[in-house]
Order: sequence, then C-alpha cells, then structure tokens
Amino acid sequence: MGGDFGPHCIVPASIACLAEIPSLHLVLVGQPSLLNELIAQHAGVDRARLHVEPASEVIGMDERPAQALRGKPDSSMRVALELVRDGRAHACVSAGNTGALMALSRFVLKTLPGIDRPAMVTAIPTQEGACHLLDLGANVDCSAEHLYQFAVMGAVAAEVLGLQSPRVALLNVGTEEVKGNQQVKLAASLLQGASGLNYIGFVEGDGLFRGEADVVVCDGFVGNVLLKSSEGLAAMIGARLDARFRRSLFSRLVGFLAMPLLRRLRSELAPAQYNGASFLGLQGIVVKSHGAAGPQGFGSAIRRACIEVEQDLPRRLRGRLEAMLLQ
Amino acid sequence: MGGDFGPHCIVPASIACLAEIPSLHLVLVGQPSLLNELIAQHAGVDRARLHVEPASEVIGMDERPAQALRGKPDSSMRVALELVRDGRAHACVSAGNTGALMALSRFVLKTLPGIDRPAMVTAIPTQEGACHLLDLGANVDCSAEHLYQFAVMGAVAAEVLGLQSPRVALLNVGTEEVKGNQQVKLAASLLQGASGLNYIGFVEGDGLFRGEADVVVCDGFVGNVLLKSSEGLAAMIGARLDARFRRSLFSRLVGFLAMPLLRRLRSELAPAQYNGASFLGLQGIVVKSHGAAGPQGFGSAIRRACIEVEQDLPRRLRGRLEAMLLQ
Repeated sequence: MGGDFGPHCIVPASIACLAEIPSLHLVLVGQPSLLNELIAQHAGVDRARLHVEPASEVIGMDERPAQALRGKPDSSMRVALELVRDGRAHACVSAGNTGALMALSRFVLKTLPGIDRPAMVTAIPTQEGACHLLDLGANVDCSAEHLYQFAVMGAVAAEVLGLQSPRVALLNVGTEEVKGNQQVKLAASLLQGASGLNYIGFVEGDGLFRGEADVVVCDGFVGNVLLKSSEGLAAMIGARLDARFRRSLFSRLVGFLAMPLLRRLRSELAPAQYNGASFLGLQGIVVKSHGAAGPQGFGSAIRRACIEVEQDLPRRLRGRLEAMLLQ
Repeated sequence: MGGDFGPHCIVPASIACLAEIPSLHLVLVGQPSLLNELIAQHAGVDRARLHVEPASEVIGMDERPAQALRGKPDSSMRVALELVRDGRAHACVSAGNTGALMALSRFVLKTLPGIDRPAMVTAIPTQEGACHLLDLGANVDCSAEHLYQFAVMGAVAAEVLGLQSPRVALLNVGTEEVKGNQQVKLAASLLQGASGLNYIGFVEGDGLFRGEADVVVCDGFVGNVLLKSSEGLAAMIGARLDARFRRSLFSRLVGFLAMPLLRRLRSELAPAQYNGASFLGLQGIVVKSHGAAGPQGFGSAIRRACIEVEQDLPRRLRGRLEAMLLQ
C-alpha cells in the first residue's frame, strides 16, 4: 500500500513480474477491494500465483517509526513481514516509509546473531559497471564495528548477486592511511586483519564512480547524502542537456537525432534499473523500493528479492558472520 | 610550485589574469630561475605587476601536514603565507597540498577570534545557479558548534560573492526535524535561535542540486565525499555520453552535430569555472585551487581571491562572528 503511487504502481509491476518469472508467486498485502479492482483491470493474470492478503491499516510516508511500531498492528507492512516470519512468504518488498520498514523488520524478523543494526545496500552505476554501496541511511551514527559488519555483509550481498571475491573498500576523504575520521581509521585496522574478505583499502568519492571497488562501505549519513546527491546531480545534468537541445531550431533538430542515443544512455543509468535496496542482517529478506519508483523500478526490486531468495541470502550471511564476527 | 602541473600551469594563468585585471599585482613565490624562464616564454608581460619572490623548498603533494609545518621553513607555500601575514600581499592562492596549506595557514596567519578551525568553501553548480558548500574536508570530525560557525562563515562568504540574505541550510538525510545524526540535530537548534542569518532548515543531497539553498553546511567528511563523488559522477556521465556518440557512423554524425551544444554544457558545468575553495576563519585570505586544475581553473581561483580582497572578507567575517558568536 506504500510508496508515492501505492498499489497503482505495485499491482501492474507485480503482474508484469508474474508473466516474466514462471516460478514466482506473489502475495499482495493490503485493502482487498482496491487490490482486486486493480488486478481486474489486467487480462490473463494467473491468479493461482497471485494471492491477496488483507490488511486494514496503512503506514503513512511521514509517520514516525515508533508510531508505526506501536500504533498499527494490522498495517500492510507489518502483515507482509509477519508472512515472512511465519514462512508463508520468502521475502518482503515494500515501497513504503523506510524508517518504519526498518523498525518493523527488526521487531518482526529480528537481526542475525552478532548484528546490532541492519544496513541498507543498493547497486549504483559506475564507469566499470556497478558498485554496492552501504549503509544508505539506516544508521546515521556508526562505530568502527558497525562499518566492519557492513563490509562483511556487503561482500556477501555482492557475491549473491554474482561477483566473485568482490573488492571491498571504505569510503574516505583520501587514500592515505592518515586520512579520515576516527571511526573510519579504526574500521580500516579491523578490516586489514580480517580473513576471507578482499579488503582493498580506502576509496574516494570519485574513485567510487571510476569503479575502483565492488563494495563501498560508509556510515548511513554519508551513504544517504552520496546516493541522493548523485540522483540530484544526474537529474540536473539531464535537465540542462534537455534545455540545451531546446534552444534553437538547429539544436532541436540535433536533439531529435540524438534522442535514441540519449534515451539509451538514460536507461543505462536509470534509477529504475538499480532500484531495490536490500536490508542486510535480518533473519529474512526485505527489499525496499524507492518510494517514487514506477512499475519498472518496482519490478527491479521484486527481481532483486527473487535472486536473494534463490541464493538464500540470510543463511549465507549467517554463515559468513559466524565465521568472521564470532570467531 | 604546487599542484599537479606546478608553475607550468600557474605562470600562464597568472599572466592571463594580469592582462585581464588591470589593478592586479601578482607575486610568484618559488624557484626564481624556473619561474623567470617560464615568464620569458610569454610576450608583452607587464613585469611591473609581476614580481618573483624566491623560496628554495617545495612541499610535496603527499607530504604530511606536520612535516610541512616543522621541516621546511623556506617552502614556497610558507613564504607566500608570510607575505600575507606581513602585509606584502593581500591574498595567497595555492594549488598545493591541501592539508599542508591548511596547517601552515593556521600557523602563519592564525584564526579569527571565536573560530576553532577554518573551513573550506566552494561553489558548485545547481539547477538554479550555484550553491556554496562547506566544509570540504578541513574538518572531518565536527561538533554542532563547528557546524554553526561554518553556517555563519558560509553566509558571509556568499554575501561577499554578491548574494543578498543567502538561504543557509544544513545537509541532512531527511528534512523532518527528527532526522539526522546528533551533531546535525544540535546544530539545527543552535541555528534556529540565531539572528541575522537566513536559516531555512535541512536540505537533502538531491535538494542541494535542485538549488533549494545558497549555502549548504556539513562536516568535512560529508562535504569532501559529496564534492568528489559529484566530480566522479559527472565525469562518468560525460564518458558514457562520448562512448554512445562513438558507437556507429550515424551516432558519430549526430555526435559531431551535437558537439557545440555539449561543449557549451560542459563549460557551464566545468570544474574550472567553479575552481577555487576559500579557507574561511583565518586572519587573511587563502584560496586553494584544485591540484589538477589547468590555467583556466587556476585563473578562477585568482579571480576569487581578487573579489575577497576587494570585499575585505576577513574583516567582514570578523565583524559578523563577533556579533553572532561572541554575544
């Protein structure tokens, strides 16, 4: 029920994914009348693989996590997480309130042994391909131990998505050993001593986009600023490019000719393609879709959840964490 | 003598600025033989306004600040700052080692009353024009009081560059009051009570590039990551655009036609145009040029220093700080 467009985006995205992935079963949690009405607008839906689970309440996008936790026992978000907890679903995908989703996920699913707080990770495009960045805002005050846990979890998440021995780096203001704040310097010394992790040292903001690392670790404040400012800058460049191509008759003509190329570039870098941030460190799979994502973007988040289910991400995380954190 | 290209960039930039600004006098500090040789390659230089001041040592780009402070009494950087301290120059512009420049600036020039540590500020392009971002890396661990000082200094610096009543915002991971880490939340309460400052609240990374604020305040870790990742992302988009325009004969043709437009867009967003970060909070004017800046970029840094001299930035900062911090 959440996100900027609610079921008006989630229902068509779900139906498209069902058609695309024959093994997929989906449970839509929310107000049955609205959901069934939206489903009925589509022809040829395999209802045997699309179930509607009733939930009478909705958590607002601006509601405080504590309020969502205490006040709404029958919210769509909570019911969806309880389906995962009870083994009735393999993963929860939500476009709703991030803070509430994190608080409810911790409360309903619990964290893995050794993990204080879950982290959020997503892929962002780089010169070389993509980079997995975490934390994206779940933890704004982080200790060195938290950064260390994020590094371990980010590496496993990257492996699950197909990378072998991913290069793990700490985001910093320089690459020399003396650079950084206290947490980052201490985290570096922890990571240097870690076995079973391809830790390559510090990376700077520009190095991240040059593709110098596969997994980049930072606290949630820095990660959130980096992600949102990148979105903002890309949008600004796009808008300025459009404006340039609208200045004169000649530039309009060039713009018309260049349109297919620019469209392909845009889809190459499109947030929709990279949509879906995983919550790592929970006893279950939770994927957060961007609140403003359209059906295509929400579909990416569903596909990300499918991969994590197939790869059994929580079990792999638990095994690696036991080996690395509890030794 | 500093920066990636040393006097090979600084000498031509200086000569171009002398021709452009009739009231400008420049002192080039460094090895006289090399400097004079490079000057002699240019015709029609007004040597009455271009003086060479000898300095026998050079601080390396990777040297540690403490080493630069203790070890090299006759470095070009230190001699240049001493010229400012002794009233023989109005401002120091350097492309050298940032950490060394900050340490030497504090040691030679001293900070203004009430300022613990100077901050670095620069302008970055936004959808609406430009935004003044600070701190950019001089202070990686910041208290709420530091952020408050940065806000006051950033506002004065923006006014000096021509903005009236600049909108000052704190960079945060959300715009609601409950969002943020401890320092940011505390800084917000300090700024809400400040008079004489147009404080507008929190801004997020994407809001910054939408032009929602004129001055954006954050700690040096976050600011450095934001600045460098923006550089990296813009370079990546440019490289991917170039690659798209080189894929086929048709796309090469479109690329050829689009080239003048893209060139104008690039110069609109070019780092060179925005080059020059001011050190705020010192008893003197110091402008840091990007180490990788070319002559055009170094010229921007010189012009920024000229404006700060004309507007007497340190005196204005001192007045505002006395009114706001020491009341």
